[in-house]
Amino acid sequence: MRGITQVRVYFSDTDQMGVVYNGNYLTWFEIGRTELMRERGCDYASVEDRGIALPVTEAHLRIRNPARYNDLVEIETRVGRLRTRDLAFLYQMRVEDRLLAEGETVHVPVNRETGRSVRLPDWLRGELDAGTNVP
Amino acid sequence: MRGITQVRVYFSDTDQMGVVYNGNYLTWFEIGRTELMRERGCDYASVEDRGIALPVTEAHLRIRNPARYNDLVEIETRVGRLRTRDLAFLYQMRVEDRLLAEGETVHVPVNRETGRSVRLPDWLRGELDAGTNVP
Amino acid sequence: MRGITQVRVYFSDTDQMGVVYNGNYLTWFEIGRTELMRERGCDYASVEDRGIALPVTEAHLRIRNPARYNDLVEIETRVGRLRTRDLAFLYQMRVEDRLLAEGETVHVPVNRETGRSVRLPDWLRGELDAGTNVP
Amino acid sequence: MRGITQVRVYFSDTDQMGVVYNGNYLTWFEIGRTELMRERGCDYASVEDRGIALPVTEAHLRIRNPARYNDLVEIETRVGRLRTRDLAFLYQMRVEDRLLAEGETVHVPVNRETGRSVRLPDWLRGELDAGTNVP
Repeated sequence: MRGITQVRVYFSDTDQMGVVYNGNYLTWFEIGRTELMRERGCDYASVEDRGIALPVTEAHLRIRNPARYNDLVEIETRVGRLRTRDLAFLYQMRVEDRLLAEGETVHVPVNRETGRSVRLPDWLRGELDAGTNVP
Repeated sequence: MRGITQVRVYFSDTDQMGVVYNGNYLTWFEIGRTELMRERGCDYASVEDRGIALPVTEAHLRIRNPARYNDLVEIETRVGRLRTRDLAFLYQMRVEDRLLAEGETVHVPVNRETGRSVRLPDWLRGELDAGTNVP
Repeated sequence: MRGITQVRVYFSDTDQMGVVYNGNYLTWFEIGRTELMRERGCDYASVEDRGIALPVTEAHLRIRNPARYNDLVEIETRVGRLRTRDLAFLYQMRVEDRLLAEGETVHVPVNRETGRSVRLPDWLRGELDAGTNVP
Repeated sequence: MRGITQVRVYFSDTDQMGVVYNGNYLTWFEIGRTELMRERGCDYASVEDRGIALPVTEAHLRIRNPARYNDLVEIETRVGRLRTRDLAFLYQMRVEDRLLAEGETVHVPVNRETGRSVRLPDWLRGELDAGTNVP
């Protein structure tokens, strides 16, 4: 499962080095995975409605080329591993085929009421897994 | 009631114009009023524990001189009007006596559970009012 | 001159009150005016290329109803006054015709190199003014 | 070389899960390394004055326990590796001895004017290295 969404760079994203501030890439990761899930009929809000939250437990970012003001950045998101107790999303950010940055987030499924870690429910695994192995 | 707190400007606060991004002043407003309340024994978290939230309904900002990277900004906060249905905080931001910006936020007391507007409780008025009229 | 652009609410925009954090509306103001200018062929980046910057000197926000996670917010932006030494943009934010918030930003044209205030150039007035008086 | 600085959690840092938004930890990383450098007489602004910038090329974050509103978070920062072409800072965040999160950022020294990668200058290595090996 893989999807592409676009974000525009505004002044609010930049810092005085004239490039996008590194913390903002984690917001782009959120946009990437949220739009991927929405596109595939597995809206994150509906996952929460079913009692499961997917908090971020790890985030990894590698910046290859800085993103700049007014860039139209393409975020490509894929589902990485899907395990019993955690799952990952993988990200690549590009401007016109130039790779800007890559990253990964790890998420642990938790029961929204208790906050406790739970096994990844089969229905969620099924929705996230759809097409993962398709070339 | 009046208090002063300090914030340092980091890259995360700046944009590529080389100055602090305008939206960040609203975060500084929050820091200013939160630290004022804490100092006076009326911690915002404890207000919420007593069932009242004070969401922002208006914010007004006037930038006189831009704040810059590494500036140590002094936020002076005062309680403005205290009315039955709303209250205001007033802010002035300075670097070494140079006025950077001024602002105001308006807040409506609401019942945290219902989200409905309520009268400003006497205990909260009392705590916020302490010293307001002292020169 | 008037334009509409849409933004989606993500977790990054919300705070623990479960609504959009007030400072983020100023980022939406930037998105609103930037997309309005782009749409009308007066891209902000090209204004800067011609030597003029338009820093925010005032921002005013009134929140009527809180925006929430996953809302698709419509930002309607209009050019307000266009004067020799300053200009304003006006904003209304809605979700499905429900008014969430209104606001205004004031900008002073400055020479990008010197940082000094300058008269609003005729070419920029012309581009921003196009259609302002059309009903 | 190791230093500790404190940050308070405000609403602006939280999201509607009721915890600190993951992207904000990268801002805390910046605060941690900036204050470490300042404390040791190697102010980042003065590094830039000498013509060197240290942009972030990688950031890694592991969240062990979520930080919450009003927490007073202790950021402990250490210099990690110091190599010819890159260097790293290591971070641990705690609230009253409870580990919240750990992380690392990697930085490449660049010439501020050309933007090109340069060798880590000896004067900077010396300042960052001071005390690194002291227990």
